[in-house]
Amino acid sequence: MATGKRFKAAVIGGSGYGGAEMIRRLLVHPDVELVRVASIDFVGEPLSAADPALEAVTDLTFEGIPPAQAAAGMDVVLLGLPHTVAASKVPELAALPGVKVVDMSGDFRLKDAAAYERWYKHVHPCPDRLADFVYGLPELNRERIRSARFVASPGCFATTIELALLPLARAGLLEGVVHVQGITGSSGSGVAPSAGTHHPVRAGNLKTYKPLEHQHVPEITETLAAAGARDLALRFVPVSAPLSRGILATAFLELPEQWTQDRLDRLYREAYAGEPFVRVPRKRLPEVAAVSGSNYAEVGVAVGSALRGRRTVTLFGATDNLVKGGAGQAIQNMNLVLGLDEKASLADPGPWPP
Amino acid sequence: MATGKRFKAAVIGGSGYGGAEMIRRLLVHPDVELVRVASIDFVGEPLSAADPALEAVTDLTFEGIPPAQAAAGMDVVLLGLPHTVAASKVPELAALPGVKVVDMSGDFRLKDAAAYERWYKHVHPCPDRLADFVYGLPELNRERIRSARFVASPGCFATTIELALLPLARAGLLEGVVHVQGITGSSGSGVAPSAGTHHPVRAGNLKTYKPLEHQHVPEITETLAAAGARDLALRFVPVSAPLSRGILATAFLELPEQWTQDRLDRLYREAYAGEPFVRVPRKRLPEVAAVSGSNYAEVGVAVGSALRGRRTVTLFGATDNLVKGGAGQAIQNMNLVLGLDEKASLADPGPWPP
Amino acid sequence: MATGKRFKAAVIGGSGYGGAEMIRRLLVHPDVELVRVASIDFVGEPLSAADPALEAVTDLTFEGIPPAQAAAGMDVVLLGLPHTVAASKVPELAALPGVKVVDMSGDFRLKDAAAYERWYKHVHPCPDRLADFVYGLPELNRERIRSARFVASPGCFATTIELALLPLARAGLLEGVVHVQGITGSSGSGVAPSAGTHHPVRAGNLKTYKPLEHQHVPEITETLAAAGARDLALRFVPVSAPLSRGILATAFLELPEQWTQDRLDRLYREAYAGEPFVRVPRKRLPEVAAVSGSNYAEVGVAVGSALRGRRTVTLFGATDNLVKGGAGQAIQNMNLVLGLDEKASLADPGPWPP
Amino acid sequence: MATGKRFKAAVIGGSGYGGAEMIRRLLVHPDVELVRVASIDFVGEPLSAADPALEAVTDLTFEGIPPAQAAAGMDVVLLGLPHTVAASKVPELAALPGVKVVDMSGDFRLKDAAAYERWYKHVHPCPDRLADFVYGLPELNRERIRSARFVASPGCFATTIELALLPLARAGLLEGVVHVQGITGSSGSGVAPSAGTHHPVRAGNLKTYKPLEHQHVPEITETLAAAGARDLALRFVPVSAPLSRGILATAFLELPEQWTQDRLDRLYREAYAGEPFVRVPRKRLPEVAAVSGSNYAEVGVAVGSALRGRRTVTLFGATDNLVKGGAGQAIQNMNLVLGLDEKASLADPGPWPP
Repeated sequence: MATGKRFKAAVIGGSGYGGAEMIRRLLVHPDVELVRVASIDFVGEPLSAADPALEAVTDLTFEGIPPAQAAAGMDVVLLGLPHTVAASKVPELAALPGVKVVDMSGDFRLKDAAAYERWYKHVHPCPDRLADFVYGLPELNRERIRSARFVASPGCFATTIELALLPLARAGLLEGVVHVQGITGSSGSGVAPSAGTHHPVRAGNLKTYKPLEHQHVPEITETLAAAGARDLALRFVPVSAPLSRGILATAFLELPEQWTQDRLDRLYREAYAGEPFVRVPRKRLPEVAAVSGSNYAEVGVAVGSALRGRRTVTLFGATDNLVKGGAGQAIQNMNLVLGLDEKASLADPGPWPP
Repeated sequence: MATGKRFKAAVIGGSGYGGAEMIRRLLVHPDVELVRVASIDFVGEPLSAADPALEAVTDLTFEGIPPAQAAAGMDVVLLGLPHTVAASKVPELAALPGVKVVDMSGDFRLKDAAAYERWYKHVHPCPDRLADFVYGLPELNRERIRSARFVASPGCFATTIELALLPLARAGLLEGVVHVQGITGSSGSGVAPSAGTHHPVRAGNLKTYKPLEHQHVPEITETLAAAGARDLALRFVPVSAPLSRGILATAFLELPEQWTQDRLDRLYREAYAGEPFVRVPRKRLPEVAAVSGSNYAEVGVAVGSALRGRRTVTLFGATDNLVKGGAGQAIQNMNLVLGLDEKASLADPGPWPP
Repeated sequence: MATGKRFKAAVIGGSGYGGAEMIRRLLVHPDVELVRVASIDFVGEPLSAADPALEAVTDLTFEGIPPAQAAAGMDVVLLGLPHTVAASKVPELAALPGVKVVDMSGDFRLKDAAAYERWYKHVHPCPDRLADFVYGLPELNRERIRSARFVASPGCFATTIELALLPLARAGLLEGVVHVQGITGSSGSGVAPSAGTHHPVRAGNLKTYKPLEHQHVPEITETLAAAGARDLALRFVPVSAPLSRGILATAFLELPEQWTQDRLDRLYREAYAGEPFVRVPRKRLPEVAAVSGSNYAEVGVAVGSALRGRRTVTLFGATDNLVKGGAGQAIQNMNLVLGLDEKASLADPGPWPP
Repeated sequence: MATGKRFKAAVIGGSGYGGAEMIRRLLVHPDVELVRVASIDFVGEPLSAADPALEAVTDLTFEGIPPAQAAAGMDVVLLGLPHTVAASKVPELAALPGVKVVDMSGDFRLKDAAAYERWYKHVHPCPDRLADFVYGLPELNRERIRSARFVASPGCFATTIELALLPLARAGLLEGVVHVQGITGSSGSGVAPSAGTHHPVRAGNLKTYKPLEHQHVPEITETLAAAGARDLALRFVPVSAPLSRGILATAFLELPEQWTQDRLDRLYREAYAGEPFVRVPRKRLPEVAAVSGSNYAEVGVAVGSALRGRRTVTLFGATDNLVKGGAGQAIQNMNLVLGLDEKASLADPGPWPP
């Protein structure tokens, strides 16, 4: 099948929601051909066994092959494997020198194996490669990603909160305790049914889980420190809400009163001017419906009145947790490591209404 | 129709969601008879014109009569009128000495006519009566409500946030800036369709509105100050979410490190021991599904690790915005002013799943 | 604990959604005391372990005791057990002569053990008692239920479709092939998470399952035959929809053209005049929101224009699958067998909006 | 702006949901440039005023210009105007000979002005052009559309039901009374908030509207007659359900018993073999989640057991009402009239989960 596409890709761990979104984007990619999908589930079945939207769209099947075999002959592999499993597969992939790797798991985001063990409750399966992975937030590390062979693509809460706070970090305004609430849709819990995603209850519920102890906080802190934050103590409360896709994050902090609405609006607009996938809406604040189904992120600022020389400043971020907060960003990273147009297969602004 | 019920009630302004919930509770009330419902909408039509769940349940119709006429011969009237309209009707009701009044609007919650004008953008229509109204949060003012003739029953965000913070205020721990996020269902927007409650968009959206400038903040601040808060500066960000009923509020503040999880749990359990409608769940944090459809509120605490002598403490509150955060609380106040069992018609624990 | 309640009840199999709704109704019942709840799950834990809405509402715990022990000293037991398990427990309950039994399972609805085996794929565990159970549809069998010791309370699709078609059956108009679509909320699938109730997919899906071969069709056919239907061939297609509670059923059939809208409206109104829980809305057709959370059922008729002497007639039914289509009806049956007011603990018209 | 795109298009009436979906597809179209969007709403504002997902995606604004001016210099115009308004604009568009027209309204679908007046309650504004429009169902009229200048693109219920029944019509099996239920998401009601799309009620409701008298039935009947149906009497009951996007239609009819599941499966597979956007899923029946957000339609068959020589046969169809049931199909028709790849800008299989 001569597709005229220049690059070849395989997805490893393709039967989850992240896999489905990566496969979807690859199937319509102008320059990258999806050659195969490896999985331990649905072996021998068509991809539509996991993603019914792929019925009659592709002839590919899930292949029960080892990662090295899946990666053979590829320009890039995209890992949709669970935490710790991903890292355990990296050595055999690293042994194939021509293959670039974009990993959606959390395994190579923290740079410190001890921190990994503390937060993921597991000894790091591949600490030797920690230094080789570039953290795949293009808005922070675009040039490093372009020349990387290994990319650790960040997940939904991390991406959303980092994008909401990055301009403050760069401006030297991010310091000390910051309170953050992140509200998430149910697809963030993945493809396996559980009590927390059981429709009869989820459809009418709002609840927190793991408040103040979420495992992605260290990654966010490390990333924002790299951008200029000082002594950042992020206090994060996630909340599950009854929608399928999307995250809205709100960060609260106190700034000196000279940081007015206008000034912070300008700071944010300038910070993201030219960014292909981050926008600061002109007349409204970020909302999930506007980014649902697309690779866009929205960020924005609301500022309170001054009191004794200080103001409360709230920063908002919105993403689709499976696209810019997941597989879309992995594709964006893939485009960068392959030297392609960063927006290839990601330009769709998404449906309205969602 | 001899019902054997001891008291007579009228609802004035009964065609909205607050009216529907008050009517429902009155129809099953063991001691109070709902005699009539006044409204400027649906005049002459059965109550089921506004609330289809009342089809064939009652013979009452909406009557297009003035408040004084609706209140004649009643022991109590419940006001479900919009802000400013409610206050404009109070003088004629006050002229009927035997009639007690429970008002669901915001008109008599603030004690200061100037503050009212600033936040509600309207001159107060009846400032002379401000001092006569007791703020109807039974957990704060039960005895004063019992002996009151006029009660200003608080609304959904105020009730939820106040209950979440009341024990801290009483313990002298509530001071300075507190960050609060409140996530709300669509029924809080009332019965009139609007862009913000249009199902195609709302069903997949999370968005903030009026961040840091919500009109109910002064009422909350005043109430918590009355309970012991000092210099409280509440920074409140409301978020709309895709469910019909329920509010989840999260408050973030910093406390000295001796305020551990155990100690705050104990403080909260003791504060609400014996309260008929506020509970501190034993093994989980507050969630909307647990209180949806009932007059119960849930509150809870999550505490972070200590850093330089301080800890982040998060307080959670959950209510059904139309019941404990609205009409249910109005009925609770009615029970108190009539000297009835506070739980009468409100004991139903609510459906599971919601 | 002297409750002043005249009767004692136990729930056996109380940890599912049917159990939760029965427990809720019993807790607010004026005449029946819920003494204990038996379950093989959550043994020793408070009832709120299964139903968070019961937190702090009752001191009862789930007891891991055999049915006979649970039933000892009771006036009535309510069975919330799965199919085949319920029937296997009936012999030991039958041995306690003073105890009446209301069963929510399908085990005693069909009167023929061979039919049971064909549809439930299981030999009937207790065929000797089939004749002792009365089918618990009060609108058909009220007097027989009043004098029964054993009641087989029908489920959600059966109740909704039977109520929609009963007046036609009685009028001798129900004959031959009838097409029926029943659309159901997710709570009908019970408390166990599964792919079909996984929120990310369910929230945006409409799909059929088991079309034309649903196991409750024989029960419906048998019931309607008992009411006068002849050679009824019900062709039933269930559809799952993204709401938690409620069923809407539509039946299509062809009638002679003299069966106009007016005439059928009259037939339906007369058929259900005086029924406490079935209503024919005056100005609209049945809808789920109007009955959600309550024990009411709505039925209605829409008639097409005549063509060659025939008209298409559509019959609609709406219930809350867990109340009138489940536990509420079980309580209604319990009230009947105990000689109580049929509406006791069931009069609540339900919330608006749902 | 040299885009390298070969064709130029304008959207007229672009501020509704149909407009948003057409604009989205045009923005990512490889061969057609969206030059302008005319509207009487949001004049002078960016497209994101109507569709927030377009924020920062395009510089186009809504232009308050007459249709002829919008169409000047275009290869094609796409009409997203309301019924009757669309037809009133056609004369001035017809006067521009080089411009092809794809109309999403119902104005040119019926071929008979009298039938139009009966169903749309309005005299047809442009009866002279009725004969010039080709009905834009590619699966029926592909070659005629390719050579057409004017296309009347069918809407959501019509497309879904027609695709579900087309193979039967062609096989000469569609005759007499057919019962159809169509369940629809809220986006089918358009962009204007109303009681029926008010989130608090819609989120928990299932209800019918206009049963047996929907205005799109004649269009469906006419289309299926053109494909071979005889004396078709379609009895259609629409139901609104609580999801944003998607339609599931079920048709019930009786066929001679030789029409087994296998034989009908084969008939359907053969009928749609080679169709780019219609699929017959192999191991399941059609479901909305599988087509949500994409231009795919799914159809399928379920067959009951034989009784006296007849079987009940049920046909299912699923589409996204705004894509294959709306704007996506308009784009598909545009591709055909311009001689482009029919799948251009429509190949995206859609998100999973939806």
